[in-house]
Amino acid sequence: METHRQTDPIHDKPTFEDILAAAQRIEGIVHRTPVLTSRTLNELLGAELFFKAENLQRGGAFKARGATHAVQRLGEEAARGVATHSSGNHGGALALAARERGIPCWVVMPEGAVQSKVDAVRAYGATVVLSPPNQAGREAMAEKVVAETGATLIHPFEHSDVIAGQGTATLELLDEVPDLDAVVVPLGGGGLLAGAAIATEARSPETEVIGAEPSGADDGQRSLAAGKLVAIDSIDTIADGLRATLGRLAFSILFERSVRIETATDDEIRSAMRLVWSRLKTVVEPSGVVPLAVLLNGSVESKGRRIGLILSGGNVDFPL
Amino acid sequence: METHRQTDPIHDKPTFEDILAAAQRIEGIVHRTPVLTSRTLNELLGAELFFKAENLQRGGAFKARGATHAVQRLGEEAARGVATHSSGNHGGALALAARERGIPCWVVMPEGAVQSKVDAVRAYGATVVLSPPNQAGREAMAEKVVAETGATLIHPFEHSDVIAGQGTATLELLDEVPDLDAVVVPLGGGGLLAGAAIATEARSPETEVIGAEPSGADDGQRSLAAGKLVAIDSIDTIADGLRATLGRLAFSILFERSVRIETATDDEIRSAMRLVWSRLKTVVEPSGVVPLAVLLNGSVESKGRRIGLILSGGNVDFPL
Repeated sequence: METHRQTDPIHDKPTFEDILAAAQRIEGIVHRTPVLTSRTLNELLGAELFFKAENLQRGGAFKARGATHAVQRLGEEAARGVATHSSGNHGGALALAARERGIPCWVVMPEGAVQSKVDAVRAYGATVVLSPPNQAGREAMAEKVVAETGATLIHPFEHSDVIAGQGTATLELLDEVPDLDAVVVPLGGGGLLAGAAIATEARSPETEVIGAEPSGADDGQRSLAAGKLVAIDSIDTIADGLRATLGRLAFSILFERSVRIETATDDEIRSAMRLVWSRLKTVVEPSGVVPLAVLLNGSVESKGRRIGLILSGGNVDFPL
Repeated sequence: METHRQTDPIHDKPTFEDILAAAQRIEGIVHRTPVLTSRTLNELLGAELFFKAENLQRGGAFKARGATHAVQRLGEEAARGVATHSSGNHGGALALAARERGIPCWVVMPEGAVQSKVDAVRAYGATVVLSPPNQAGREAMAEKVVAETGATLIHPFEHSDVIAGQGTATLELLDEVPDLDAVVVPLGGGGLLAGAAIATEARSPETEVIGAEPSGADDGQRSLAAGKLVAIDSIDTIADGLRATLGRLAFSILFERSVRIETATDDEIRSAMRLVWSRLKTVVEPSGVVPLAVLLNGSVESKGRRIGLILSGGNVDFPL
């Protein structure tokens, strides 16, 4: 397997060929997840909905794709291990990917992170390092870990190999369900959506790609409207996986393609969760149902259309 | 299709041939549900576990099997409709079965029933009649409805056609997963377990059949130990689907075969739910995980064994 890096993972945008190569590289390590449907949900919206169940992915989220791809692409430096900062799902994914390759892993997590996500990282054998619950604090702590250990930093989304890996989720959906009118994808840091935009442009150019974002963390929508990265003062949403700020690399990919972003409130996200849990009987986290929420609140027209939605993850704390 | 009744549905015990006939009769109306597995749960128990996912059944529970079979077996009397009393899942199942056949349906439900179950019955087009939350009150109200409407009473478990229908869940599991050492089945009124006992005895006689009951509703275990139906003073369990008292017909079937019953506490049931939700990522109700709970608490030996478990249903209220 070729491991010598030809590209700069922090600045180079991945191509469709990179996504195809990522699909080959991660095959057999991550799951090809099923596509779920519900007659009741289709009737409710007068649409045909296809849910790509990344909550059934290894580690419970699509993040296994990008993390596994990035770790498999490392050369000799892999021996010193990998590190990242993550509110949870990327941390668990990187821990899994590192275990698969037999290398050490450090995950910087914010104090107050979802407990099930912290537990998962530890269960996969990684070391958890707690940090203040803001992006600056997380990044500073991650840099400190890298300086002390010599580990390679695998950023959750500001990384070409990670974005290429995330793009395989949409690639699989497009290959399994042809002739989609739209694909709706959760937007946090932007890795999943950027990968979806690249995959769809090449594989199914008639399919519209739409990002779905919590209205309490709508920096992505604001940034694409302004044509530059816009910071928002406070992030407030139950969708803990989408609290990250849109990254530069993803912004550039999305802005070039004029990708449309729609938002949903926390109440709309809760309603969507209840529907998915009760109708699909599948456990999803709030972040994973934001695409359904923007259909339910009418931001995205669904009547008579065939729409793919990425159920991005299923790691939640249970109140039992 | 033969609809003239040859048997007395209240007193005749179903045979294995009745279960085979039920499987044919309900094919295409109810789902053949998948069997789920989890590497993590297998490692945790040192066993091979096979979960028959009846939470993914139509209406969200195995009850669709028995109700559909009983409704499809009715002759001309079907035109006057069907009625039942149920804490929820059988009510929803009968409502669905009646809608499939285009006949009216009345469901007597206790005040305080799980709201999602009440909503489901109404959504399927049946009429909900509320009653006091005890078995005597429910039965009296059901008799009143039958007297006033001429509907046929389809009891949730005290009914040969219902038991034969429920037996198809275990039949499918045994056909899909050969050489099981044991099948563990939730026990409430006894229809699912009685059907499992008949199906297993004929299809896979080396497989042990074990009933799993909440310790706060252990009338089944007490009754089989005493050799007669034993009433308990108070029912106290979060497993709302298993609060019913073991029926005469099921008791007789289980006692003849010396079926073993094991129990789990509500805390053990909660732990099992958390495991199933977080690892299988599938939405189950407390009643559905009592089989896993009796493995986790050591009542049923699992190490090195291949064990089938019926995840009986997935209808829960969400605290979101």
